[in-house]
Amino acid sequence: MISVLRLNHRIGRDDRMSTHCGLVSRAFGADEIIFTGDEDRGLIESIKNVVQRWGGIFQARHESSHTKVMKDYKRRGFKVVHLTMYGMPIQEKIDEIKKSDDLLIVIGGEKVPPEVYQLADFNISVTTQPHSEVAALAITLDRIFGGKELSKEFDGEMRVVPQEKGKKVVRRGEN
Amino acid sequence: MISVLRLNHRIGRDDRMSTHCGLVSRAFGADEIIFTGDEDRGLIESIKNVVQRWGGIFQARHESSHTKVMKDYKRRGFKVVHLTMYGMPIQEKIDEIKKSDDLLIVIGGEKVPPEVYQLADFNISVTTQPHSEVAALAITLDRIFGGKELSKEFDGEMRVVPQEKGKKVVRRGEN
Repeated sequence: MISVLRLNHRIGRDDRMSTHCGLVSRAFGADEIIFTGDEDRGLIESIKNVVQRWGGIFQARHESSHTKVMKDYKRRGFKVVHLTMYGMPIQEKIDEIKKSDDLLIVIGGEKVPPEVYQLADFNISVTTQPHSEVAALAITLDRIFGGKELSKEFDGEMRVVPQEKGKKVVRRGEN
Repeated sequence: MISVLRLNHRIGRDDRMSTHCGLVSRAFGADEIIFTGDEDRGLIESIKNVVQRWGGIFQARHESSHTKVMKDYKRRGFKVVHLTMYGMPIQEKIDEIKKSDDLLIVIGGEKVPPEVYQLADFNISVTTQPHSEVAALAITLDRIFGGKELSKEFDGEMRVVPQEKGKKVVRRGEN
C-alpha cells in the first residue's frame, strides 16, 4: 500500500497545490492521501469527485496530527519517506525504499517541523534544487512503480481515448 | 535547447502553479520558460531570484502571443510538444520526441485554445487521468533527459549537501 501524507494544508492559499497533490497521488498509483492542517471539505470532495468520474479506489481524508499518522503507520509496518530538497538523492535510495511494500510518502510545504525529519525512515530529495512538492511526488511514485503507473487502467465512468490532435472522452459503455 | 511555454498565466490565481512550473523547468534541466497571459513581473523576478541564488543559466520571460511563440520556434526548427491528458501516451512517443534536440514544451491550464492542438507537433499525455501540469512537465523532462537531470550540478551561490536527517546548505567557498 502506498499512502501520501500532505502536511499543513491551508484553506485558500493551498487549494490548488493540495488538489494537485491528491490528483497526482491517484493518477500515479498511490492508494490514499491524508491531509493535515486546515480541515477542508471542499478539497476532499473535489478529489472524491474525480475518483467517482474517472475511477479507481483512491481514498482522501483529513487527520489532525501528522505525528500521530506517522507513528501509527510505522507501527503498522510502513516505512516513512519524507520528500525534502535537503534529503538523500532518490536515485541512491530507491532500491532500499522499494524493499518495503507499504510506504507513507510525506510531502510538506514551506515550513516542515523538525520531528518530521526525525520520524522519517528516509529523507529523500528529488534533485537538491528548490522546485515543487507536486513534481517531487510524481517522480517518487514513478520511481516506485518503475514507469508502469503511466499505463494504469482506472475503469472509470469516463475514459480518454488518446488522440494525435483534439480530445476524445467516452463514457462507460460507449465506444 | 529545451524551452517551456506556460499558457495563460493569471496574476493571483496562478501565482504558485506558474512559479512551480518555472522552478521545475529549471531544476529538471530546461533552458527557459516563457509565460503568456498576464504580464507578471513578480513571477519572473521570483524565478530569477532562484537562478541567482541556486545557479544555472535559466531564463524566464513574458510574451504576449502563444501562437507567435509556437510559430517562431517551429520556424527555428523546434518541435512543439503540447502536454494534455487527451494526447498520445508519452511512453509511446518519447523515442520520436527525443530525435529533436530542440523542443518547445507547451503546458496549458484549464482551457487550451484549439489552435494549440493543431500547431503542436506532438500532443502528449502523461497518464490519461486528470492531475497536474507540474507533474506532467516533471515526468516529460525526466523522460527527455533519461533521469540524468536528477544529478545535474548548478554551481550556485547556495548548494545543498544531502543529509540523512536535517538540513545542510553551504555557500560558495564554504565546505
